[in-house]
Amino acid sequence: MEFIPIGIVRSRLSTAGAPPFQSVFSDEEGKIEIFPNFQEGLKNIEGFSHLILISCFDRATQQALTEQALIDDVAPHGIFACRHFNRPNPIGISYVALTRVDGPILSVRGLDLLDGTPILDIKPYIPAFDSIPDARSGWVTADHIGRIRAAGSHGEKAPGCGRPQE
Amino acid sequence: MEFIPIGIVRSRLSTAGAPPFQSVFSDEEGKIEIFPNFQEGLKNIEGFSHLILISCFDRATQQALTEQALIDDVAPHGIFACRHFNRPNPIGISYVALTRVDGPILSVRGLDLLDGTPILDIKPYIPAFDSIPDARSGWVTADHIGRIRAAGSHGEKAPGCGRPQE
Repeated sequence: MEFIPIGIVRSRLSTAGAPPFQSVFSDEEGKIEIFPNFQEGLKNIEGFSHLILISCFDRATQQALTEQALIDDVAPHGIFACRHFNRPNPIGISYVALTRVDGPILSVRGLDLLDGTPILDIKPYIPAFDSIPDARSGWVTADHIGRIRAAGSHGEKAPGCGRPQE
Repeated sequence: MEFIPIGIVRSRLSTAGAPPFQSVFSDEEGKIEIFPNFQEGLKNIEGFSHLILISCFDRATQQALTEQALIDDVAPHGIFACRHFNRPNPIGISYVALTRVDGPILSVRGLDLLDGTPILDIKPYIPAFDSIPDARSGWVTADHIGRIRAAGSHGEKAPGCGRPQE
């Protein structure tokens, strides 16, 4: 299956292996530049506070089946049981806050994507569809979450972290 | 960018244009069959109650920039401001409940995907990352949500609905 970029990330993030690792814990601001031939697809997007960005991890180095997750260096997990970017298909999901729309340029906050990352799709985040607050998080504990949160967007490596996650 | 299927949906759903339209409102049960060479990627997945399925809308008929959304037949919205499947890149997101793992077969509930839909990626749903209950839903009102919910998984067309959404 062949997909094409509909836009590109403009962010200050350029170091693979550094936080932020999940958009929810990131304060990083930046832009999503939609290519001119797709600009019409943004109509009525301005009312949504959050967008789902579907991106391509174009700097992923492997297509692994198991990975040492950033937040748990005890043992590798199946790639479909963690959020590492070295996936068979390097497709990422990020949720960013939409702060402004200027023609084809979306200003966003909460970026966890490197500058130049290709964007494949954007969907509006709709809590009635997308929010499952009571879902059970498997091997991911409150301690793991705390490590990601603490790393925040300070640009320091999280403990036990060799590589970024989406 | 070239992606490959890592598995396939086995469901009772075969009619494009019929509900269920969003996994959260679906009771539909079915299987995700992971192809043998990707089975190792499922390690430790069983502890998660919900999975994010990234799929390819292989029966999408167009790559539109605006669409008449299922839940709002008043005016078309930009494709990046709605969840219709006729997207420049026909990539879908579904959140399903994981009920059982038998080797490469995932039993799931809450399917909104047609039988035979290719799966590109699976990620564990982690509320601390993925749940944004207070996000603002733009043009989507409680009435719109109610129409989707009412359509449920009864296999009837929702009012004003010509085609399914993801």
